[in-house]
Amino acid sequence: MTRCRDLSSDTHAGAAPEVLAAVNAALRGDAPAYGNDALSERAARGLRDLFETELEAFAVVSGTAANGLALAIATPPFGEVLCQESAHVADYEAGAPEFFTGGAKVTPLASRAGKLDPAGLKHALALRDGAAPHRSQPAVVSIAQANEYGLAYRPDEIRELAGIARLRGLRMHMDGARLANAVAALRTSPADLTWRSGVDVMSFGLTKNGCIAAEFVVVFDRNLCAGVGAELRRKRAGHLLCKERFVAAQLLASLEGDRWIAWARQANAAAQRLAGRITAATGLGPAFPVETNQVFVRLPEAARQGLVARGFGIAPPDPGSGLVRLVTSFDTSPAEVDLLADELEAVLEGRAEG
Amino acid sequence: MTRCRDLSSDTHAGAAPEVLAAVNAALRGDAPAYGNDALSERAARGLRDLFETELEAFAVVSGTAANGLALAIATPPFGEVLCQESAHVADYEAGAPEFFTGGAKVTPLASRAGKLDPAGLKHALALRDGAAPHRSQPAVVSIAQANEYGLAYRPDEIRELAGIARLRGLRMHMDGARLANAVAALRTSPADLTWRSGVDVMSFGLTKNGCIAAEFVVVFDRNLCAGVGAELRRKRAGHLLCKERFVAAQLLASLEGDRWIAWARQANAAAQRLAGRITAATGLGPAFPVETNQVFVRLPEAARQGLVARGFGIAPPDPGSGLVRLVTSFDTSPAEVDLLADELEAVLEGRAEG
Amino acid sequence: MTRCRDLSSDTHAGAAPEVLAAVNAALRGDAPAYGNDALSERAARGLRDLFETELEAFAVVSGTAANGLALAIATPPFGEVLCQESAHVADYEAGAPEFFTGGAKVTPLASRAGKLDPAGLKHALALRDGAAPHRSQPAVVSIAQANEYGLAYRPDEIRELAGIARLRGLRMHMDGARLANAVAALRTSPADLTWRSGVDVMSFGLTKNGCIAAEFVVVFDRNLCAGVGAELRRKRAGHLLCKERFVAAQLLASLEGDRWIAWARQANAAAQRLAGRITAATGLGPAFPVETNQVFVRLPEAARQGLVARGFGIAPPDPGSGLVRLVTSFDTSPAEVDLLADELEAVLEGRAEG
Amino acid sequence: MTRCRDLSSDTHAGAAPEVLAAVNAALRGDAPAYGNDALSERAARGLRDLFETELEAFAVVSGTAANGLALAIATPPFGEVLCQESAHVADYEAGAPEFFTGGAKVTPLASRAGKLDPAGLKHALALRDGAAPHRSQPAVVSIAQANEYGLAYRPDEIRELAGIARLRGLRMHMDGARLANAVAALRTSPADLTWRSGVDVMSFGLTKNGCIAAEFVVVFDRNLCAGVGAELRRKRAGHLLCKERFVAAQLLASLEGDRWIAWARQANAAAQRLAGRITAATGLGPAFPVETNQVFVRLPEAARQGLVARGFGIAPPDPGSGLVRLVTSFDTSPAEVDLLADELEAVLEGRAEG
Repeated sequence: MTRCRDLSSDTHAGAAPEVLAAVNAALRGDAPAYGNDALSERAARGLRDLFETELEAFAVVSGTAANGLALAIATPPFGEVLCQESAHVADYEAGAPEFFTGGAKVTPLASRAGKLDPAGLKHALALRDGAAPHRSQPAVVSIAQANEYGLAYRPDEIRELAGIARLRGLRMHMDGARLANAVAALRTSPADLTWRSGVDVMSFGLTKNGCIAAEFVVVFDRNLCAGVGAELRRKRAGHLLCKERFVAAQLLASLEGDRWIAWARQANAAAQRLAGRITAATGLGPAFPVETNQVFVRLPEAARQGLVARGFGIAPPDPGSGLVRLVTSFDTSPAEVDLLADELEAVLEGRAEG
Repeated sequence: MTRCRDLSSDTHAGAAPEVLAAVNAALRGDAPAYGNDALSERAARGLRDLFETELEAFAVVSGTAANGLALAIATPPFGEVLCQESAHVADYEAGAPEFFTGGAKVTPLASRAGKLDPAGLKHALALRDGAAPHRSQPAVVSIAQANEYGLAYRPDEIRELAGIARLRGLRMHMDGARLANAVAALRTSPADLTWRSGVDVMSFGLTKNGCIAAEFVVVFDRNLCAGVGAELRRKRAGHLLCKERFVAAQLLASLEGDRWIAWARQANAAAQRLAGRITAATGLGPAFPVETNQVFVRLPEAARQGLVARGFGIAPPDPGSGLVRLVTSFDTSPAEVDLLADELEAVLEGRAEG
Repeated sequence: MTRCRDLSSDTHAGAAPEVLAAVNAALRGDAPAYGNDALSERAARGLRDLFETELEAFAVVSGTAANGLALAIATPPFGEVLCQESAHVADYEAGAPEFFTGGAKVTPLASRAGKLDPAGLKHALALRDGAAPHRSQPAVVSIAQANEYGLAYRPDEIRELAGIARLRGLRMHMDGARLANAVAALRTSPADLTWRSGVDVMSFGLTKNGCIAAEFVVVFDRNLCAGVGAELRRKRAGHLLCKERFVAAQLLASLEGDRWIAWARQANAAAQRLAGRITAATGLGPAFPVETNQVFVRLPEAARQGLVARGFGIAPPDPGSGLVRLVTSFDTSPAEVDLLADELEAVLEGRAEG
Repeated sequence: MTRCRDLSSDTHAGAAPEVLAAVNAALRGDAPAYGNDALSERAARGLRDLFETELEAFAVVSGTAANGLALAIATPPFGEVLCQESAHVADYEAGAPEFFTGGAKVTPLASRAGKLDPAGLKHALALRDGAAPHRSQPAVVSIAQANEYGLAYRPDEIRELAGIARLRGLRMHMDGARLANAVAALRTSPADLTWRSGVDVMSFGLTKNGCIAAEFVVVFDRNLCAGVGAELRRKRAGHLLCKERFVAAQLLASLEGDRWIAWARQANAAAQRLAGRITAATGLGPAFPVETNQVFVRLPEAARQGLVARGFGIAPPDPGSGLVRLVTSFDTSPAEVDLLADELEAVLEGRAEG
């Protein structure tokens, strides 16, 4: 079926049939609660296999919780998290990092297309030298992979930032809400994009990639877990489900046959196709290179509203930049992209609704 | 099928097929995120109809989160929550109330069979008179319905406690993780068991009654919500799901045709049957009246281990009281109870496994 | 001058002339801020000499802050502090431990005359075995020296409790708001009463013993300080004064010539004398042995009010126990005690005011 | 005496003799604790008289505590504080606002010479429109008077910012750590510089102006205090002293005969003189207009070190701006300024020490 898609966000998509089937199967009959079930154990093994290393993982049900818990593991209350300007952890989580950490400071630094600038990071850290105890103490560098503008950090970019962090005793956090899209785009292993490049702790998101609600805090440097009570912090935030198998089942269904990569690849391809068609239709290229599943364009507002009137979901432009963001999903088909592009052309040409 | 059931806890059961089907249907295709979808709206209406009143409701995925958020709505950081001795909010949530409220104090008071004693509550409040600013300020009385020992508060019992609370400006919180079982047991309307008896804010749990992960903070006195940022607090705790329809669908499937009551009734009946059979087999009656779905018995440890060896899930006795807790579920059948009872008799008689 | 004293609390006394002179001298002229001054350095040395060991010390201005900071050093947010029933940290600090620790739980255990019972502590810890992650994790045992009823723990009593704590990986905290009185009473060295008996971290109070506002968090096990940001926690609680020499000067004046012991001895002696005279006058002995500077008596309310009418400060009886608490100070003279006792006799005999 | 002064900060100065005498007198003899004494009552009255209005005031002992408590009164945990780029509350309090508020976000906005720009504030607020519940909710606009660069806001400047704040339901906070210097500079009444221009809550600092440790949270809009437990928050932060008269006495000594204004005037005049002499000596004017007691200059590093070698206290240049900050105090005399200026000339001319 070729539907008018909601492209406001990849959070608007449903879940993959394979995920729904797995949840359905997992929740039939009794099983030990609180993650002591067989599926949860298999999920833990699945993550170790996927990342090719020993690790600690904690399932939660939202990216906000995953970031909050990950940062609480890596940052004391008197710590500071340095991130890019438009980071989700800084602006779109209603202060979850502050809440989970007990009042750490999240400081956005100037960045380019959502990528943290190594020189800027160095400068910021230099300014903080010797400022204790008058200033929150830099504790974590946080980057998003892919980032908020759809760009993916290359391993060497991550390594450079991680190197700067390490030199000062800071930890490296990755908001991997869209790690799948980055892995699919860069054709690099999850391990290379994370711990092998210096990431200590990650929020690994599956929700935006075909799941219902499944995110994992993945701790690569298990020393980080010592004394910070990750398990207890999850529990006291209400994120230890009694029926943990619900989250485990989603992960296992995603990992099976590398479906998660295939889904992300489909989303990325749809974004590419969409960007191409919009450029052709409007003469305006995307504001940022389209590497993953997000397309930022300077769409005429009348055209946007025309599309909305025809049933497409497209959010208003960002009040700051004026850019419209279009996000494809694990299940966005070429036909759906074409339908939108055809309608866009019709709208731009002033044709009546098809 | 007559299975060896896991009776350690109602959190060990799976989910009802109707709930699974509803989740399956809800997650197919696009929908607005963060609770702006049609199902979430229907769920809100469903709660209003169920409780026969206007209210504010916030979906979360665990009882711990529901209690934490509910208490954060009703208690300032410098407040005190008074509850029964063995309250879940005091002992089994790893400090979630402290976390969600920003450091309020949770004080267990002596109680009888898990019911808060009105005289004890009055006495505790009198001792706190004029103690500000040296003492956390009493802010909430919290009771569990049904309580931790499986007993249900009658409306007049709730009213008496709520009256004492009101007189001193305290709010009344109900941990309704097993509200269904209380409603089923007392054959009283949800409204009569809650706001009509003076409850201001409740955690309404569906997870233990056939759902996957579905709990609602229900605020009856909507004045409570003014200025406390319930919506923002949920978000910053990571409990606003992008695919909120997941929780809404579970509620709607539960409410349809009063299934939730039917499920609770089945659990309660199974507990009654279980208590009867155990009494017959051991000669020892339950430690507390069996009103809902929990049975506390002084089971010989050898017998318990014998049952475990035969495939039943039964948790070790409480180290304090020595009592074994057996919990039935929405899907515990009479045959399953009988199977356990038969095996118990066999174990007690020293017969070999059937 | 023989004054009608305010015996409601040792917090009602003024400051010793030597302390006032030292503050006066310390605050004349420039000095580096934030504890980088010469007096603060001498104070740090003074504490090391006093306790005969290396240590970390942090000056604050109230006992509540000292306890809060000390507990925040020793307890994570998901930790639990076990203390005696009537502990100041549990009941009289408006939730400061919860605030400073980020939401740890403070649990009062049954005790005798304000002394934590080793058997009760063991039992409480046993009940918590294996309860993680569902329960806040026991982290600290906290005792007060002298305790809230004026009794002093002997070194062997402390050692026994500390041994139980250590065995389970808990830390030992001492609320030393009245350490001076205990040292004076027991004629034991500060070292023997603290770290040599297993205390890891202490709040060392000088305010109630002749100072204006001077308390020190003393960390004996300096490993405790690793990673917990004690310095930063003090700063962010607003307890790093720019003119830290104010606190240092008070400590130095107190330590000089062991004045602090002499003051405490005077307070203790006054309490002894007071208890003797009251027993003689009323025929009723004190409710607890008078070891330090507090006397708990069952004073007829009319008599108490009669004394208040004559100008003495005596707080109403505790609503729970009915006991009247009389507290002597570093500067309570025998003549002042006798004046009160004489007046008490007059009141009891119905004589008119002298 | 003409001393080599420590001009690194006004926190390095001592206390005024009148303040020391008042503290000395206040602490002799008994008085009710916790602010129930006569001096504390007089201090409350004194503040009301000074600001010509009813108000609530809470004494604390540091500016960090005053700002933290003031912001906790005006901001919920899910709130956001908007301030100038270099604000003390953002950068120099080790996260105290986050700690006191329970995790509110402090966001620095671009500013000019430490003054918050009305257009920038409007823009920032517009960007936050409709962002709940995904973003911390703007709750407070915070300005410093005089600001971190020594500039004083005029009443109409405050009114403009307060107007923007009010329109969106935000509160106006003033960090008045150097209010005295602003009042002295502008020759405007404290009332006109605060509540009459729209300030809701202020931190009123006396410590930097001749006191030992005395700051007041002054709440002009007493509605702000409803439900926020200011008194309890102070207590649980350890800032309710038992001998509160210590703080009250400092305030009363400062207010007597408008000494606080005279002291600030002396500091301001010294800064003027200093700026003039440095300009004359170096040919380089101050980086910002010298309105109060701070002078920012681009001092040759060799010259600065030369002065330090001769006994003056001058902090290294700011690593960001390269500016050297010189701060005069309530007791900086013209002779002391001249001594420094003479020595600077000598250093610049390469002359040997005088």
